[in-house]
Amino acid sequence: MKYSTIGIIVKTETSVTDIVVRVCDFLAFKQCDILLDDSVTDIVSCSHVPIVSRDELVNRADLAIVIGGDGSFLNAARSLADKGIPLIGINVGRLGFMVDISPDDIETCLEQILHGNAVSDERFLLEAQVKRDDEIIFSGDALNDVVLHIRDVARMIEFETLINSHYVYHQRADGLVICTPTGSTAYALSSGGPLLDTDLEAIALVPICPHTLTNRPIVVDSDSLIEVIVCETKNAIAQVTCDGQTAFEVDTGDRILVRRKQNTITLLHPPGHDHYEILRAKLHWSENP
Amino acid sequence: MKYSTIGIIVKTETSVTDIVVRVCDFLAFKQCDILLDDSVTDIVSCSHVPIVSRDELVNRADLAIVIGGDGSFLNAARSLADKGIPLIGINVGRLGFMVDISPDDIETCLEQILHGNAVSDERFLLEAQVKRDDEIIFSGDALNDVVLHIRDVARMIEFETLINSHYVYHQRADGLVICTPTGSTAYALSSGGPLLDTDLEAIALVPICPHTLTNRPIVVDSDSLIEVIVCETKNAIAQVTCDGQTAFEVDTGDRILVRRKQNTITLLHPPGHDHYEILRAKLHWSENP
Amino acid sequence: MKYSTIGIIVKTETSVTDIVVRVCDFLAFKQCDILLDDSVTDIVSCSHVPIVSRDELVNRADLAIVIGGDGSFLNAARSLADKGIPLIGINVGRLGFMVDISPDDIETCLEQILHGNAVSDERFLLEAQVKRDDEIIFSGDALNDVVLHIRDVARMIEFETLINSHYVYHQRADGLVICTPTGSTAYALSSGGPLLDTDLEAIALVPICPHTLTNRPIVVDSDSLIEVIVCETKNAIAQVTCDGQTAFEVDTGDRILVRRKQNTITLLHPPGHDHYEILRAKLHWSENP
Amino acid sequence: MKYSTIGIIVKTETSVTDIVVRVCDFLAFKQCDILLDDSVTDIVSCSHVPIVSRDELVNRADLAIVIGGDGSFLNAARSLADKGIPLIGINVGRLGFMVDISPDDIETCLEQILHGNAVSDERFLLEAQVKRDDEIIFSGDALNDVVLHIRDVARMIEFETLINSHYVYHQRADGLVICTPTGSTAYALSSGGPLLDTDLEAIALVPICPHTLTNRPIVVDSDSLIEVIVCETKNAIAQVTCDGQTAFEVDTGDRILVRRKQNTITLLHPPGHDHYEILRAKLHWSENP
Repeated sequence: MKYSTIGIIVKTETSVTDIVVRVCDFLAFKQCDILLDDSVTDIVSCSHVPIVSRDELVNRADLAIVIGGDGSFLNAARSLADKGIPLIGINVGRLGFMVDISPDDIETCLEQILHGNAVSDERFLLEAQVKRDDEIIFSGDALNDVVLHIRDVARMIEFETLINSHYVYHQRADGLVICTPTGSTAYALSSGGPLLDTDLEAIALVPICPHTLTNRPIVVDSDSLIEVIVCETKNAIAQVTCDGQTAFEVDTGDRILVRRKQNTITLLHPPGHDHYEILRAKLHWSENP
Repeated sequence: MKYSTIGIIVKTETSVTDIVVRVCDFLAFKQCDILLDDSVTDIVSCSHVPIVSRDELVNRADLAIVIGGDGSFLNAARSLADKGIPLIGINVGRLGFMVDISPDDIETCLEQILHGNAVSDERFLLEAQVKRDDEIIFSGDALNDVVLHIRDVARMIEFETLINSHYVYHQRADGLVICTPTGSTAYALSSGGPLLDTDLEAIALVPICPHTLTNRPIVVDSDSLIEVIVCETKNAIAQVTCDGQTAFEVDTGDRILVRRKQNTITLLHPPGHDHYEILRAKLHWSENP
Repeated sequence: MKYSTIGIIVKTETSVTDIVVRVCDFLAFKQCDILLDDSVTDIVSCSHVPIVSRDELVNRADLAIVIGGDGSFLNAARSLADKGIPLIGINVGRLGFMVDISPDDIETCLEQILHGNAVSDERFLLEAQVKRDDEIIFSGDALNDVVLHIRDVARMIEFETLINSHYVYHQRADGLVICTPTGSTAYALSSGGPLLDTDLEAIALVPICPHTLTNRPIVVDSDSLIEVIVCETKNAIAQVTCDGQTAFEVDTGDRILVRRKQNTITLLHPPGHDHYEILRAKLHWSENP
Repeated sequence: MKYSTIGIIVKTETSVTDIVVRVCDFLAFKQCDILLDDSVTDIVSCSHVPIVSRDELVNRADLAIVIGGDGSFLNAARSLADKGIPLIGINVGRLGFMVDISPDDIETCLEQILHGNAVSDERFLLEAQVKRDDEIIFSGDALNDVVLHIRDVARMIEFETLINSHYVYHQRADGLVICTPTGSTAYALSSGGPLLDTDLEAIALVPICPHTLTNRPIVVDSDSLIEVIVCETKNAIAQVTCDGQTAFEVDTGDRILVRRKQNTITLLHPPGHDHYEILRAKLHWSENP
């Protein structure tokens, strides 16, 4: 088999014990070593499986399985990206853009993927830094997006955007979404951004409720350095979030630098995987008024 | 003259002493009684003019002049609506949608308006209530808009909207703008809403970054009762704001009721006023790429 | 019974003989007089029912039933508006915004409606005129919309819009949709227009692919006179269409006048009808990505 | 000097004799060989300059100058792409996205560019084919866009889109814009498409007035093969246009294939050229309501 040590990361809030047990049983039958991420403290029935820290899981596993939703997947992907460990997503509840294996198909899909019979789907991440007076005061990774946003929409934020050190525009808006192709189906889409094909080497900049009617999403090469300078917050609180999961408060004068992260993450899908099928299902493309 | 007691309301932060003095001098020359709103504590040079509380100004004046921007105007309009006192807006800095008299034209315009030679422009306001367990826990008025919004966009809010007690939709979004025609050029426009002609008896409901791609702005009769039920905030903080100036925190289960306020406010414009001219100037309609 | 002479208008291309027969049988049982619109020449099995011209149907019927889709309904509504004859719509194939009675419910619904047990839903129409050198060269009615459009999108059209004789803007675009609340779910929606509540007394102006990014839909009172002056077609062919069913070619200098038609049309729905339910079903409002 | 034989292509309809004369005089002074494209039959005063066919110009020139607007530039670029001849654009009337040299700066800019002191800006083109029963019945190139559109918007078109032979969606719409980064500021922008950075290796698919509200622009890698199958035109006339300048009528069952053209075109700009400056000027990015 292609993979021998499998890390399992589970969304803690969900009652997914049955699925975790099924996955563990199947992997044990396949004589894989299993490591359970220690976020899963409440799953007692799998206690013959070692529960390890995320760090240990990342160091030892050669494949990771996420059981949960796209949110859990984002969290796992960010920690696994540095080591290049591929990821599988089993959805709990409903189909996700990334967690695309249905609980019904667990054994069939794992069987194929463990033997290397998988569709490999490489995605890049973003790395964000906030600089204040040339000192880095925040760093974070994102698989979906880096978002600058005012907390109190009764106010708004002013910022300047530069692409590869070229001044693009000064903008008054509720904020700005900087997203990868992976993130183009998430918050950027709600803000009016375009879909980026998953293998496109590009980053989209999507303004959120811009006060200037002429501002439109811009798509740039993924090798671009994007710089956003917070010009004016008028005493309101603005923040930068990575994948909507890590937040950091920014102030007037702060510079947010976003660039493509060198390491990528590899999603594994069962053979026959078709990303457009997921788009059609989740975006309801076939339905006319 | 049609008006004899004139209240003056000034945006405090701005250095507009010269304009205030000019307005006071002109009104004194016209033998009007002048009342200065007590937000203007720093304007000493007009101290021969009585400085009164907003309440007293509202009770005694038969015309009010706002010197400032659209923000000051919103604030003044809400306090004057109950008494039916007409309003004039002198802009400071740049043309506003409502403060449409340029400092250059103060004397000419006031001369005409004081003699009743004015274009009358009646606008309705909204009144908002937040109910928790059938108890009213917040009330507020708005000339522009009542906005429901999540404070932390890394999360989102779920809510249900009813129009005249008919269920319209369940929505996941960053929020919802409920605006008057006056407010249709403000935040609602940034969120993708349509322009409502100033004399249209209608209210627009404009979703902010809706997660469902099929959600569109809806325009309803101004006599409609709009009810928004906060379904789920997932421990995030959501708030209701009136004109972006009064904020109130809402929780799961709260019901936000918005209806047209009975009293209206009357804006006075100099003769020849053309609202579309202001739209063209402020929205840059004549400019093609 | 409230209605005694019932006109039936059927979409000709569809094979709906069974439904027509069922409707006729039920009405005959109810001892109604039936008139079949002569567009239905191929329905032989109903030949004991008199087949009449649209004019005769309009003059004699006191209720009309449309069997078909929203397109058939539009056509019927325009011819019935002058006489104030109410309309019922039975859908063939799939639910329409207006043809809302399912074939399954024909007898139950008709029973109730014939006895006056119906939800009355009054809609206004638009009347369009094209003037060339002050001569009226085209007139037409529309329940949905009056659309100005260039035929060849490789080119574009320039036009000026006036509302109640006030100049609004000069625009370069593919065209302009002028729609009623009824039409706000049709072509205007595809062009980015808002939904207008069915009982709102308003008309929306929705630009089609405007070259100026600042142009937005405008909603005006339904008593407004809308005037569009074709400034420049650059030898391309532009046309005006009413409900997408009547087309007329316009030229540089032509003026298109659109106003609310005095007579309205009344749709009858079975008791318990809920327009928002149709919106939710047809616009897929409940479905999140 | 870097270039010795200069072809000049002029927009015929415009009265640009003065500018052409100035350009010719300057090039003559610089001892360049000049070739005037034979579209310029009315410019007599330059008659000491040889007037040649476009073919001859393309074969002999090592630099081409377009005097006109973006439309003239598109036309010239398509004919020059195969030979790799770089292009300069001098605008007549107003600044274009591509014709970015102002008449005021002709001599200064040409001086620098002729000596190789220029910013090189490589753009790719699209090649479109229409296949009927596996036979190619139309081929065309486009620097901006390939557009499928119904001629009569009272009707609409149905089509299926495939990317690299993967089925994406079935769509009912007025049409579809397939554009390069160069074309993303043209018709695609009016249809709601995003801006693509000029050096991004991507193609955008932007639906025109889609009937399904969930359809959004998609951006794909420029190496993708895009295939659009015309499913249903309902007897209406649909057409494919390249850069809005070449049109071809398509029918039900026709397949439109669009891919990146192998040869690119190189635009030359004067030193210090900043594409975002042109975007800011033409899209009016600095102007808030």
